[in-house]
Amino acid sequence: MALATLLEKFSYDRTQSADSAGYQFNHTMLRVKKLQESVDFYCNVLGFVPVYEQVNDDAAFTIVYLIRAPLSAIPDEDETRKEWVLSQTGVLELTYNHGTENKPDFHYHNGNDEPQGFGHLCVSVPDVRAACERFEALNVPFQKRLSDGRMKHIAFIKDPDGYWIEILQPTPLDA
Amino acid sequence: MALATLLEKFSYDRTQSADSAGYQFNHTMLRVKKLQESVDFYCNVLGFVPVYEQVNDDAAFTIVYLIRAPLSAIPDEDETRKEWVLSQTGVLELTYNHGTENKPDFHYHNGNDEPQGFGHLCVSVPDVRAACERFEALNVPFQKRLSDGRMKHIAFIKDPDGYWIEILQPTPLDA
Repeated sequence: MALATLLEKFSYDRTQSADSAGYQFNHTMLRVKKLQESVDFYCNVLGFVPVYEQVNDDAAFTIVYLIRAPLSAIPDEDETRKEWVLSQTGVLELTYNHGTENKPDFHYHNGNDEPQGFGHLCVSVPDVRAACERFEALNVPFQKRLSDGRMKHIAFIKDPDGYWIEILQPTPLDA
Repeated sequence: MALATLLEKFSYDRTQSADSAGYQFNHTMLRVKKLQESVDFYCNVLGFVPVYEQVNDDAAFTIVYLIRAPLSAIPDEDETRKEWVLSQTGVLELTYNHGTENKPDFHYHNGNDEPQGFGHLCVSVPDVRAACERFEALNVPFQKRLSDGRMKHIAFIKDPDGYWIEILQPTPLDA
């Protein structure tokens, strides 16, 4: 379906876009039980960089913004960097409520078990087979391997809290 | 805290980033009860554009990818556009399970009521006060107005399923 047909199907109204000029889909926030473990996962497995941390001792929580960007593109100075990261798209915010890591039975809800709502994050990769082999070597848990189910071109891995992360490549897989 | 200090605090390992070269934080997926209503909200209120739709009649679900991008930047041809959107960052995927809109008591879980997990999306805006006035005029429901609570510089609106969307401006507010 051509783009114009799709826009018509959804009654897309071009006149609205001027009113939201300069808006940016900045971030997605997930709560995590163990902050360091989650930062390690998103950095080492998926190549994010922790860009800004805000510790709120009064309310006993810490937030960390992460983004996939070369270090050379990230401003060094604290306030500049905060404004920068809030102006980007593709940011992940992790919220850590202090002390959760010490509660053995505590866990967050991944959105796919009942009650359902939030589904997943997705990281697209140049070569989904190579990426999945890398995740296997890193002992990353899978929700769905490429070989599982009917959709052989996508996989789902799980982050330390059990949130699902879809892995796909934008282009068709070689036979 | 300078960036280098933050990276050290989280034991950030620069050597990992080469292994995830070309990865992209592509999208966040939310389930929605009423597809057209949700597309209207993300387009008319927040300036997204529906870019790609995939209807799966066998499994009785439809997905729609949306992105904030000028129409002129979006490829017209279907397969090219699909590859394009899967290569971007800042994409929102809405999943609609056919028929949910006809179930009066059906609703999705927003992640902030118990059991908690997913928190919110965030759209940053050039002028948070002007944006909130616009949302009021559009009768968008608020979870938190700028005047509510202690954090006077951020607001939260709610999408048609009750998912929270943080609204902030990257720069300090004028007094």
